Amino acid sequence: MGVVIKNGTLVTALDQWVNDVRCEDGKIVEIGPNIEASSGNEVVDASGQYVFPGGIDPHVHMELPFMGTVSADDFETGTAAGVAGGTTTIIDFVIPQRDEDMMKALKWWHEKAEKSVADYAFHMAVTWWGDKTAEWMRKCIDEEGIPSFKTFMAYRGAIGVFDDELINIMKTAAQLQGLVTVHAEHGDQVVEMQNKLFGEGHTSPKYHARSRPTPVEGEATERAAQLARLNGVPLYVVHVTCQESIEAISRARLRGETVWGETCPQYLLLDDSVYDKPDFEGAAYVMSPPIRPLGHQEPLWAALKAGTLHCLATDHCPFNQVGQKDMGKDDFRKIPNGAAGIEHRLALMYTYGVGKGWLTLNEFVDVTSTRAAKIFGMYPRKGALMVGSDADLVVWDPEATGTISASTHHHKVDRNIFEGFKVKGLASHVVVDGRIQYRNGDLKVERGAGRYIERSRS
Amino acid sequence: MGVVIKNGTLVTALDQWVNDVRCEDGKIVEIGPNIEASSGNEVVDASGQYVFPGGIDPHVHMELPFMGTVSADDFETGTAAGVAGGTTTIIDFVIPQRDEDMMKALKWWHEKAEKSVADYAFHMAVTWWGDKTAEWMRKCIDEEGIPSFKTFMAYRGAIGVFDDELINIMKTAAQLQGLVTVHAEHGDQVVEMQNKLFGEGHTSPKYHARSRPTPVEGEATERAAQLARLNGVPLYVVHVTCQESIEAISRARLRGETVWGETCPQYLLLDDSVYDKPDFEGAAYVMSPPIRPLGHQEPLWAALKAGTLHCLATDHCPFNQVGQKDMGKDDFRKIPNGAAGIEHRLALMYTYGVGKGWLTLNEFVDVTSTRAAKIFGMYPRKGALMVGSDADLVVWDPEATGTISASTHHHKVDRNIFEGFKVKGLASHVVVDGRIQYRNGDLKVERGAGRYIERSRS
Amino acid sequence: MGVVIKNGTLVTALDQWVNDVRCEDGKIVEIGPNIEASSGNEVVDASGQYVFPGGIDPHVHMELPFMGTVSADDFETGTAAGVAGGTTTIIDFVIPQRDEDMMKALKWWHEKAEKSVADYAFHMAVTWWGDKTAEWMRKCIDEEGIPSFKTFMAYRGAIGVFDDELINIMKTAAQLQGLVTVHAEHGDQVVEMQNKLFGEGHTSPKYHARSRPTPVEGEATERAAQLARLNGVPLYVVHVTCQESIEAISRARLRGETVWGETCPQYLLLDDSVYDKPDFEGAAYVMSPPIRPLGHQEPLWAALKAGTLHCLATDHCPFNQVGQKDMGKDDFRKIPNGAAGIEHRLALMYTYGVGKGWLTLNEFVDVTSTRAAKIFGMYPRKGALMVGSDADLVVWDPEATGTISASTHHHKVDRNIFEGFKVKGLASHVVVDGRIQYRNGDLKVERGAGRYIERSRS
Amino acid sequence: MGVVIKNGTLVTALDQWVNDVRCEDGKIVEIGPNIEASSGNEVVDASGQYVFPGGIDPHVHMELPFMGTVSADDFETGTAAGVAGGTTTIIDFVIPQRDEDMMKALKWWHEKAEKSVADYAFHMAVTWWGDKTAEWMRKCIDEEGIPSFKTFMAYRGAIGVFDDELINIMKTAAQLQGLVTVHAEHGDQVVEMQNKLFGEGHTSPKYHARSRPTPVEGEATERAAQLARLNGVPLYVVHVTCQESIEAISRARLRGETVWGETCPQYLLLDDSVYDKPDFEGAAYVMSPPIRPLGHQEPLWAALKAGTLHCLATDHCPFNQVGQKDMGKDDFRKIPNGAAGIEHRLALMYTYGVGKGWLTLNEFVDVTSTRAAKIFGMYPRKGALMVGSDADLVVWDPEATGTISASTHHHKVDRNIFEGFKVKGLASHVVVDGRIQYRNGDLKVERGAGRYIERSRS
Repeated sequence: MGVVIKNGTLVTALDQWVNDVRCEDGKIVEIGPNIEASSGNEVVDASGQYVFPGGIDPHVHMELPFMGTVSADDFETGTAAGVAGGTTTIIDFVIPQRDEDMMKALKWWHEKAEKSVADYAFHMAVTWWGDKTAEWMRKCIDEEGIPSFKTFMAYRGAIGVFDDELINIMKTAAQLQGLVTVHAEHGDQVVEMQNKLFGEGHTSPKYHARSRPTPVEGEATERAAQLARLNGVPLYVVHVTCQESIEAISRARLRGETVWGETCPQYLLLDDSVYDKPDFEGAAYVMSPPIRPLGHQEPLWAALKAGTLHCLATDHCPFNQVGQKDMGKDDFRKIPNGAAGIEHRLALMYTYGVGKGWLTLNEFVDVTSTRAAKIFGMYPRKGALMVGSDADLVVWDPEATGTISASTHHHKVDRNIFEGFKVKGLASHVVVDGRIQYRNGDLKVERGAGRYIERSRS
Repeated sequence: MGVVIKNGTLVTALDQWVNDVRCEDGKIVEIGPNIEASSGNEVVDASGQYVFPGGIDPHVHMELPFMGTVSADDFETGTAAGVAGGTTTIIDFVIPQRDEDMMKALKWWHEKAEKSVADYAFHMAVTWWGDKTAEWMRKCIDEEGIPSFKTFMAYRGAIGVFDDELINIMKTAAQLQGLVTVHAEHGDQVVEMQNKLFGEGHTSPKYHARSRPTPVEGEATERAAQLARLNGVPLYVVHVTCQESIEAISRARLRGETVWGETCPQYLLLDDSVYDKPDFEGAAYVMSPPIRPLGHQEPLWAALKAGTLHCLATDHCPFNQVGQKDMGKDDFRKIPNGAAGIEHRLALMYTYGVGKGWLTLNEFVDVTSTRAAKIFGMYPRKGALMVGSDADLVVWDPEATGTISASTHHHKVDRNIFEGFKVKGLASHVVVDGRIQYRNGDLKVERGAGRYIERSRS
Repeated sequence: MGVVIKNGTLVTALDQWVNDVRCEDGKIVEIGPNIEASSGNEVVDASGQYVFPGGIDPHVHMELPFMGTVSADDFETGTAAGVAGGTTTIIDFVIPQRDEDMMKALKWWHEKAEKSVADYAFHMAVTWWGDKTAEWMRKCIDEEGIPSFKTFMAYRGAIGVFDDELINIMKTAAQLQGLVTVHAEHGDQVVEMQNKLFGEGHTSPKYHARSRPTPVEGEATERAAQLARLNGVPLYVVHVTCQESIEAISRARLRGETVWGETCPQYLLLDDSVYDKPDFEGAAYVMSPPIRPLGHQEPLWAALKAGTLHCLATDHCPFNQVGQKDMGKDDFRKIPNGAAGIEHRLALMYTYGVGKGWLTLNEFVDVTSTRAAKIFGMYPRKGALMVGSDADLVVWDPEATGTISASTHHHKVDRNIFEGFKVKGLASHVVVDGRIQYRNGDLKVERGAGRYIERSRS
Repeated sequence: MGVVIKNGTLVTALDQWVNDVRCEDGKIVEIGPNIEASSGNEVVDASGQYVFPGGIDPHVHMELPFMGTVSADDFETGTAAGVAGGTTTIIDFVIPQRDEDMMKALKWWHEKAEKSVADYAFHMAVTWWGDKTAEWMRKCIDEEGIPSFKTFMAYRGAIGVFDDELINIMKTAAQLQGLVTVHAEHGDQVVEMQNKLFGEGHTSPKYHARSRPTPVEGEATERAAQLARLNGVPLYVVHVTCQESIEAISRARLRGETVWGETCPQYLLLDDSVYDKPDFEGAAYVMSPPIRPLGHQEPLWAALKAGTLHCLATDHCPFNQVGQKDMGKDDFRKIPNGAAGIEHRLALMYTYGVGKGWLTLNEFVDVTSTRAAKIFGMYPRKGALMVGSDADLVVWDPEATGTISASTHHHKVDRNIFEGFKVKGLASHVVVDGRIQYRNGDLKVERGAGRYIERSRS
């Protein structure tokens, strides 16, 4: 079998050059000029197109049980939508309930993920601290290929941890040379404001946003950074959305700390006027942290450009308007939090990041793929165009155009928060594990073809 | 009876002018030129001297049960030492134990304080949240003259509160138009570091400082400011010691928040080399927050000058080296936290603040007296030189010199953390409630003469 | 003669209390309860009203020759408009031309100012550096009562100074213990942008604002603060308008520097949409710095509240739309810079500052009067309610309402940049030098009654 | 001939992998496993060693006429010392005198540089603005391969430019899509302080440092960044030394500006106690900006790690103690500014940067080579390990140790500012243009073998 991609402009986080690439048995086996296709090789003419390492989305939730329902994309449909958009590897989160056995939850996640069409890895959420937690964390790193631990400062009373638990997690991760990732919102304050607003008779989606304004996130980001500093652990802040969090991360980095920041297309491209949509349509945008007021988007782009933020994820976690989001019709607190995005990440970033001059092509590859691979211990198996790397590749047509819509997307959900967004730049071919699974709009994936990726310490 | 002070230079937070002052029946009854002393009036010639409103120390702990012992100055000796140094009003803290009835604790504090030689008021510490707490807080303000509530983010497991409790306190204080004051240190992180250091075999006093470095305080100050912002309550941060806390307060104020900051002479004048003293003498300096490394003192002075910090208190809370501090001989965690200072506050501030050009005379009066009176609802009864104000006055000899020592101080404790400090500028006479109680080194006070001051909302 | 004000609530920068005030021979001679009016005394019943020290506007330009014309209010009409609004003292700027004899310019300003109806002082602008400049500066302080020197970083090629000149001015002022005030805009960059925009065919008023955006001011503020620091001189930054300048001032103050900041009602209350007015009406708002985009007004209020800005001036410098502003009909660079405001300063500040909760009454008095008196060496003759102070007083009716309009204002100019603004709180009586010159809308002033005020070092 | 390097660990700014490298005709012609050496190929066994792209020093001054003398290393000795330390490309600065023809100066620099032993490029200093300057700048980019322009805000009266000149340079560079680099110190203020200190009788080297303290640099960095922002040009700040400059750069980057920062080993590793050396030895450390007080070194390391600073240069510009530095024996203002460093850049950075954990190996390659190649338009000819790149390579022995000394260095100067510094990690072999010119301590270079490198826009 095998695939030969001819005459493309290869782009890595560092370089850009014209070459051919041969993939065999799921690996890149040759990069060079004038590679002759063997018989049986499929040949892609990539003239005038870019070849990127396959996208890595380090923040997704497939079939997540959450707020009394389950997120709408399962591992099959979710990874398939990713492939359609050029993302060939995801990192999902194993999320045990409070008091649940971490290893048992991991087992269940493995079962759910088996149907993935592309490769997947896991972060482990540490949602409570018990006698066995440190040992479980050790096992995750030493035996399960999971060196990154997710913590929630939000979601008090559910999967959120108390500060003393967070400290134990950080301390343990530091000893194990692992990484801590954090959802930074002050959980107690959110609960307080939710109940206050609801008590005042405010029930509609926009009060979701009002119940968790930017200081809620800025404070928690500062706190997480200071605790990570004091406990000697590297920190990765997921879905950064606002100026105050950027400043907290910048302060930490200028003190010499290892603090990474992630943001998502919705925070770069939308503003909180979305919550004013009539007919409960604002519910589609209910996620945590929420979409922010105008004035935060440009600082986020600037922070990506400046290297204060590092990865572009989606927090893909869709819920249908009908049957899921409408559980919170009369109470914004009950609207399941999350939206879809995995399919559009690269196209949006290319169009509005590279296209508007915020990012170079190298930086585009870095934030959508390479940096995540490095931070999370999959490099250079993933995120690289090197002989020996996994044959996950995107052939990118910079001139292709499209319009995002729920009516055409591959997400298994009834709304799209980027409905109507124009994009210029789309994948023409996507190679997954050495096989072309997407060709000019035609998605052919294989249920269960995806493999679990064990990660190392970064 | 009565007192007439002649020819002094009166100094307020705003003005400076030469005039005479007559005090009768505990009040200032006349300010003007050429006041004739009536028969029975005692006359003080204040030529060449300043007349200040009596000092107010808004942060002291007399006979505080703490860490298994009781602070060494009781209300009599502590207020007497204050008078000797020009401080005529204190605000002490009622500190209920977790689960204790706030009103019962208040009653006990009233009993303890009756022996005071000068006027006193109370802050109420809210050390836990229960069903009755909101109602107790209302009573404090409406019936007990206590509109300010102290919260501890440190001292986890004892009098420290959790963030959800802090939010409830702030929310309630906001509704009642009260003020929240905060001891800002991350309690859980301190416990973690204390145990870690002790576990590594570190037992001596300097590890007290190492277990609560500046980020512990900076983080908590930021958190307190953000929570106060979100809950709509004015905030007063006690004993600010470091650059990071100053920056957090400055950020809050430039956002438009009402956030006040307090510091103490020990943080302005000492550095953490004190913990290297041999023979367990470092224990004398064990307090929380601890004395900071070189580099924080000048920013604190600058912040006072800039108006980012506002009050100068002492956190007076002495423990004897013999019999108290030595409880922690083998474990720094058991050294009672605190030191004496009430007697020297004005002299140190005058010598090193006014004398070094950091503060004008008006600012000196402001930070040592007037601002506390205003913030804490005692103005213009206290902190002012106005007809009708309480006759609490200090006649200040700017040329008098002295050397601070445990062998000469009026504190009832065996060490002085300012031992050997030279001062220039000392009280020559102190008028308390219209009576001269200190005359050129001669302290004559009356047990029980002090009155409880009910305060209003500021 | 004489005036007795009865039952008013006296408000100073520090205090608030009910008392009577007697003025004789241009001085406050008595403050106390139940003052009996002598025969010949005029009595004002101030029950339910405030009594403030007369307003001080530290930044005005009367009959200033500027940009080929002369500002529309002369010293008579300008000071009269001030009195109508409660401002009883101005500080105008003597502005020599480049190479002009400073002392000659001063003489001319004295001649122009003689017709003032209320007291006036001068800042001296140092617009070039020559052999005699240091000696002239010495004379200003020692002989002329002018201890403050204005420098322009803008207006390159005219009255703007080069940095080496600014350094000489600062160094000399430091030696003389004077104060440097600065108009902070990067002059060369403004010229560059003006010419660029004009060269691109942009001629209308809004390009005035675009040619001097906030970084032009922020940069210069930082530079001025750093140079003042290095040359050891206190600095006063006039008309601060934007976030970046506030931050530069805050940084300087937190380093311990003496840096004061001033802002004006137009920067607190208007945004740059004013430049979009049709029919060249935007020209009325052409001033330097220009009115800023939305987003800067709240930070300015917050900075006033926080004490990072200190004085509220007007930069009063009106030009008529017809015959003056229209000189720049075809070239925004030729629109005379400036607008009127002296009459409305107190009413706007009271309505939008005190009324909206940004300032306490004491702070209102401080920023509109007392602080300027202190910084600029007129205290307590001006800015105070003390026996012996000048009898400049405002009786303020907090319930009076009005609407600002060019059709009713006392400014001698055909437009009002606050046209249509509602105010609540207006002067009912204004006492100037012991004489009531404004009574409930009736302005009776005396040409030439104003006196030159010699100022001291602060 | 050709060279084959076997079994080394190749390290780029992105990757690290074991491979062989073949160089022929000055180019890298093959990278892969098991490369067979042809006859005539020299083979280097790099087992256990790293292979880096040759170092690029973007800031050196060879045989620079300066302050009445000429810097001690000429292009031959200077580039040779570079080769000995692993630096195979330099960027020197053509520095016309004020009013001198830029093209004439360029011609002279070309003549001087012909004797270089390794490749060299030029920045063009724009030291004055005249009618022809814009055209000269165009020629530099379009015809001479020089797209970067150096400006001096220091050195007022000599090669320093005024702000209006700087603006013209920036505007022109923006139009030409060039880059502006800046030496950021406030020239006028330095002159003022130099003369003040000298006038007070201070003549020794340490007053050089006192005459240009950190605010002098911080201010200028802020100003340069703001002017670059307003004129739309990317900016590169050379030799950043202090916290305030880092903060100015960070602010600019977080606004979205393209601002790069460079620092040098001396600022990372030395503190200003060097100026206290007896016998005029402090003169060896006289450079501008000067070595800074303790407290700035760690922030510089942190800023490199954080990506707020980007390149590591040397500002190599040595002067002999005897015969050159001693020109300023009696006047610190006359000590020629500069010191040697090109030979030790990689070893110091490896030892103290990689060795202490501040930088990863990839980051080490980035800051010492790749980033400069990219910013300055030489990538991937220089700074890369790619087929087709110039065969400039360093084989690096991470276990080799040494001690820096003037008695052993290859710089042609009698002092070494790193005298006695231990290093671990040294070049074992250096390949220049495909030829091994340094082998285990044996330096064999060829006068005139270096070529002029024309650079493109980045």
